[in-house]
Amino acid sequence: MNLITVIGLLAGGLTTIAFLPQVLKTWKSKSAKDISLGMFFTFCTGVFLWIIYGFCVNDLPVVVANIMTFIFASTILYFKFKYG
Amino acid sequence: MNLITVIGLLAGGLTTIAFLPQVLKTWKSKSAKDISLGMFFTFCTGVFLWIIYGFCVNDLPVVVANIMTFIFASTILYFKFKYG
Repeated sequence: MNLITVIGLLAGGLTTIAFLPQVLKTWKSKSAKDISLGMFFTFCTGVFLWIIYGFCVNDLPVVVANIMTFIFASTILYFKFKYG
Repeated sequence: MNLITVIGLLAGGLTTIAFLPQVLKTWKSKSAKDISLGMFFTFCTGVFLWIIYGFCVNDLPVVVANIMTFIFASTILYFKFKYG
């Protein structure tokens, strides 16, 4: 595995796992006032399309990374509806 | 341009533009208490690596989309430091 692949995997890993601290913060604080509904609604829609795209082009890393991101981002969206 | 390409472009467009509503919301409310510093710090780092990766593999759409995302996400990170 060359350095470019490592950078790509690291990039994908970070932009996926990044949503976990927000999930944990909102879960603990039960407050989502400052979080934009528009952002997480648009983002979840986009990530869902990435999953479909990944399936269509048979790109497993795209599918897997975006399924994980979708789980995190849709949890934040759920918290936004629940805690306002 | 086939349907799969359209889905991919739409996915990339949505996951990029998604951050704009959060920028506008935080800019107007001047409140970022519920936003996770860990999320936006990790996300910006990941997006920065995506830009480097895009340059390395000569993938212009990856570079352009991630530069736009980086501008939005780092603005939110700046607001988080500024408004707490």
